[in-house]
Amino acid sequence: MAALADAGIDPAEVDGMSTYTMDNNPEIELFRNIGGRELKFFSRIHYGGGAACAPIMHAAMAVATGVAEVVVCYRAMNERSQYRFGAAFTPDVLPTAEIAHYGNYVPFGLASPASWVAMSARRYMHEHGATSEDFGRVAVGFRDFAATNPKAWFYQQPISMEDHQASRWIVEPLHLLDCCQESDGAVAVVVTTAERARKLRHAPAIIRAAAQGSCDDQQMMTSYYRPDVTQLSEMKLVARQLYASAGIGPDNVQAAILYDHFSPFVLPQLEAFGFAKKGQARDFVREGQIARGGRLPVNTNGGQLGEAYIHGLNGVAEGVRLVRGQSANQPGACRNVIVTAGTGVPTSGLILSSD
Amino acid sequence: MAALADAGIDPAEVDGMSTYTMDNNPEIELFRNIGGRELKFFSRIHYGGGAACAPIMHAAMAVATGVAEVVVCYRAMNERSQYRFGAAFTPDVLPTAEIAHYGNYVPFGLASPASWVAMSARRYMHEHGATSEDFGRVAVGFRDFAATNPKAWFYQQPISMEDHQASRWIVEPLHLLDCCQESDGAVAVVVTTAERARKLRHAPAIIRAAAQGSCDDQQMMTSYYRPDVTQLSEMKLVARQLYASAGIGPDNVQAAILYDHFSPFVLPQLEAFGFAKKGQARDFVREGQIARGGRLPVNTNGGQLGEAYIHGLNGVAEGVRLVRGQSANQPGACRNVIVTAGTGVPTSGLILSSD
Repeated sequence: MAALADAGIDPAEVDGMSTYTMDNNPEIELFRNIGGRELKFFSRIHYGGGAACAPIMHAAMAVATGVAEVVVCYRAMNERSQYRFGAAFTPDVLPTAEIAHYGNYVPFGLASPASWVAMSARRYMHEHGATSEDFGRVAVGFRDFAATNPKAWFYQQPISMEDHQASRWIVEPLHLLDCCQESDGAVAVVVTTAERARKLRHAPAIIRAAAQGSCDDQQMMTSYYRPDVTQLSEMKLVARQLYASAGIGPDNVQAAILYDHFSPFVLPQLEAFGFAKKGQARDFVREGQIARGGRLPVNTNGGQLGEAYIHGLNGVAEGVRLVRGQSANQPGACRNVIVTAGTGVPTSGLILSSD
Repeated sequence: MAALADAGIDPAEVDGMSTYTMDNNPEIELFRNIGGRELKFFSRIHYGGGAACAPIMHAAMAVATGVAEVVVCYRAMNERSQYRFGAAFTPDVLPTAEIAHYGNYVPFGLASPASWVAMSARRYMHEHGATSEDFGRVAVGFRDFAATNPKAWFYQQPISMEDHQASRWIVEPLHLLDCCQESDGAVAVVVTTAERARKLRHAPAIIRAAAQGSCDDQQMMTSYYRPDVTQLSEMKLVARQLYASAGIGPDNVQAAILYDHFSPFVLPQLEAFGFAKKGQARDFVREGQIARGGRLPVNTNGGQLGEAYIHGLNGVAEGVRLVRGQSANQPGACRNVIVTAGTGVPTSGLILSSD
């Protein structure tokens, strides 16, 4: 309701909805409760946070093909208060095709997202000389943005590199402060035609490009059989599609929202999008380029690490604010902003642009 | 693999997938196993059998917008051998928003799909003078088609009206033979551009129209608070969109696949699509119009009742065969075929046409 009010659209006009398979709030319950009348499009996207940008893509497809005109993309989580994502597998999990591959890892202690990411992070450090302090620079930078974002969970709570290094291990090489919180919260984004959007309350954020991607024998957070486990093949596929579709390259991007459930995966994302060569994102980070005042401010809302873990859809909302010039940490005019979704999983991405 | 071989498309070319949220076979597991390379689109649709036609719509949207070129839509079930759909709720179900509304019904014994449908069926009988024999005519007709479809579960096993009437009650007014079997099976459908399809092994089935629909305060199989519970509001919404999009009406439709997990809902579907006036589908059925040799042969594969319960995606496959003239019970040339998805739930539909 807040998103529709912000747009200035009557909820009765909503005719499409898109969300994550993991969301616990079914379309028709929301639709009835907002006073929806005719729902003509609904889709969901699998693979957790990898979905984050895909509802926007699906909505754009529905609008572009005339299937729907006003599509609400949403994600709501009460994982802090009810269910937990970060916990290790419990023995009552059913043996479906979904989780069969975990049989290769869970018996050896790799039983939680932090542990799966730790494997890739350690390999990345080994191959490319990145250090825990590089991951710390990512976390410190995002928490710096969160500290000045009144909507962030960690508002007015910046951290120092010393805090990061002193925080306890979750799974080596991940410190506590490399891992996002589990949050209660919700985000909704309204997608409609550019023509319609131009007549609404705020300047529109144009969906200049949208893509989903999975490739290179992807598994769910455990793609360890790839020739190179330090790269995010699926994010490279998304980046290639986004740049091709938008007709721009990294030089035309002023800010980015890069998915950061865990800090290490921010580095290969910078490489996937061409902001650094393979294995060299550490230098880009050490130079302060993703922090406040840098070449490419990243996660100006504080990210999943600092604002909240709403499975990345809050990153899309921040992308909208950036192209509108309305971020709490607005770095100057943003013509084009990259937004990414979950890493280590089949993923998605957007380039949002000012009109 | 069989669907792609039938089409004459290399599995490495698949770049999109769409399925049901209920499916247990994740996209990336299938994709890896068929030798997929770059997956650029994936979507799922909620609400069980109501999804049946929606993957085709999503695939068409992806192809039309250039997001993907070869999209595989699939549904596989092992409900007969592993999990059961038709069973009543068990007490270990988690109290999510998904099932909160069942709290109004389950404590009073309405605990299974058959019981939910029985309520609507009884009301339909009361309002419109339909009888158990009318439901029997539906079942007998579909089993007649199944009996001559070598791929049907009930191949060579037709039933008579006496069989139907003598079969035991599941939930009054539903006899055993008003209810579909639970099946093990799988269906895959390949969607690509019409241009590409014309160069493949078989004549293409053109997706002339596709729609999803939910409205009128829909609940999941228990929309009892509507002013008129004898009508399928969401199917009327789907029908309106399909006819408008295709630019045709019921007179231009030669055959139909109407979702039949339970026989009673076939009647209001005939009304929703304009083959009979409200409450009068019984006459259309009594005249034998949906049976072999009738004006509108329905479920020439045997339907969910006679071929198999693959959550409706097997109905899409039969729709393709009908427009190609390849049904085991081909009723003559079919220029346009209607295919519908689950009833009593948010649903979807297609008009498939010969080229």
